[in-house]
Amino acid sequence: MRFISKTSLGGVTEQFFTLDEIPGVLWTPEDAHGTRPLILMGHGGGQHKKAPGILARAHRFAAEGGFAVAAIDVPNHGERPTDEKFDRIATEYRARMAAGEDTAALDTAMYTLVAEQTVAEWQAVLTAVQQLDHIGGGPVGYWGVSLGGAFGIPFVAAEPRVRAAVLGLQGSPALAGTAAQITVPVQFLVQWDDERMPRAQSLALFDAVGSAEKTLHANPGKHGDLPRFEMDDSLRFFARHLG
Amino acid sequence: MRFISKTSLGGVTEQFFTLDEIPGVLWTPEDAHGTRPLILMGHGGGQHKKAPGILARAHRFAAEGGFAVAAIDVPNHGERPTDEKFDRIATEYRARMAAGEDTAALDTAMYTLVAEQTVAEWQAVLTAVQQLDHIGGGPVGYWGVSLGGAFGIPFVAAEPRVRAAVLGLQGSPALAGTAAQITVPVQFLVQWDDERMPRAQSLALFDAVGSAEKTLHANPGKHGDLPRFEMDDSLRFFARHLG
Repeated sequence: MRFISKTSLGGVTEQFFTLDEIPGVLWTPEDAHGTRPLILMGHGGGQHKKAPGILARAHRFAAEGGFAVAAIDVPNHGERPTDEKFDRIATEYRARMAAGEDTAALDTAMYTLVAEQTVAEWQAVLTAVQQLDHIGGGPVGYWGVSLGGAFGIPFVAAEPRVRAAVLGLQGSPALAGTAAQITVPVQFLVQWDDERMPRAQSLALFDAVGSAEKTLHANPGKHGDLPRFEMDDSLRFFARHLG
Repeated sequence: MRFISKTSLGGVTEQFFTLDEIPGVLWTPEDAHGTRPLILMGHGGGQHKKAPGILARAHRFAAEGGFAVAAIDVPNHGERPTDEKFDRIATEYRARMAAGEDTAALDTAMYTLVAEQTVAEWQAVLTAVQQLDHIGGGPVGYWGVSLGGAFGIPFVAAEPRVRAAVLGLQGSPALAGTAAQITVPVQFLVQWDDERMPRAQSLALFDAVGSAEKTLHANPGKHGDLPRFEMDDSLRFFARHLG
C-alpha cells in the first residue's frame, strides 16, 4: 500500500493511495490516534472513488462518527483502464436503458464479469487498511448502492470481517442467491419511483437478504434522488452496529 | 380539562386527565417550563392509553426529546364504555381473523363507525392540551400504528396543526382515499411478515399517502414485532420535523 498525498479539510484527513493497481482514498478524523471502526464505500456505475455522494458521506462518517472510511475505483471506473468487453456491455446497457428495454441479462453479464475481481480487491484493501495504526482490526461496515450494491452484496456475503451494511438501489434477480447468504444487519435503500430498478424487483431483493435484522427504507423519487436524511440514518446505523 | 393525578418517574411527569368523557394521560419532562412540541399517540386495537408500547415511547419522547406527549383511550377501549354495535363488529373481527378469513369489510365498518368521533376527540384534546403553559401552541406530531394508524390517518389528514406523523401497521384499502389527503412528512412502518395486514396492501397504503416526504421503514417480523430501534427512529423523525 502506497500513500500518494495527504490533505486535511474540516477535521478530516484525506489520503490517496494505491494498492497494486487499485487506486483508493482513505478518510480519517484529523489527528486520529488509536483504532477505530472502518467503513468501505462502493461507488455507483459510471462514478468513482471521489464522486460527490461518496465524498459527502465519507466526510460525515469520519467527522461525526469518528470512523475511518475507504473508497476505491472499482474495475473499469475512475482512474482505471477500461476492459474492452466491459466497455461493450456498458455501452449496450446504456443504449437498452435509454430505449426502455430490459437490461436484466446485461446486469448479470456485467456483475459476473467483474464481481469476483472486485470482491478480491475489496478484501485486499481491507487487509491493508486494517494494518494501519490509526485504524486496526476493529469492526467493518460496507456502504454501497446501485453498482456499489451489486458488488457489495457478494462482498458482504463473502467477507466475515464486515459486520453491517447499507445496500440498495438494486433489484437484479441475479443477486438474489448471494443476498440470501448475507447474515449481518442490513439497511436496504429503495427509491419508490426508481426508473432503473422495477419496484417489485427491489422489494424482492430486500426479501431475499438472509439477515435476521434487515430494514427497508423506501422514499419517493427516482434512482438519483436519495434524500439527504438517509445519510443521517446510515451514520446512526453504523454507529449502532460498529460503535 | 380536569387533572386527576400527577406522578413523576425517571425525569418524566405523568398526569391523568379527563376532557368531557375522554380519559387521557399527559407526559411532560419533569419541571418543564416554557412551550414545547407535542406528540399525540394513538394506541392499537384492544389496547389503551397506557399500553406498554405507548408508555415506553411516551417516556423516551419526553425524557430524551423534551416533548410533551398525550394519549387517550379511543372509543370502546380502556376505561371507556363499549358500544354494542362496535363490540359486535370487534367480536366478529377476532373470529374471522382467527379463522384466517378476510376482514376488509369489517375494517371499513369499524373505522366508519368511530373514526369521525375519534378525530373530533383528538382535536378537542389537542386544543385543551395546547392551552397549558408548559406546552403551548407549538408544532404537533402524531404517532399511531395498527388501529392507531387507522384513526390517525383521518386525523392527520384533517388537522392542520399536525406537522409530522409516524403511521403504519395498516393496509386497509378503506384508508387510501384519506391517506392521499395527507401532506405532512410521514414515517410509515411495515412489518414484512405481518399476519394481519397483507404486505401488498400495506405497501399500497404507503403508496397512497399524499406527502412529498414519506419514508417506508419495513422490518422482518409479525404485526407485534416492531423492532426497538424504530423507537429511536421515530424520536429522531419528530426531532427533525418538530424540533
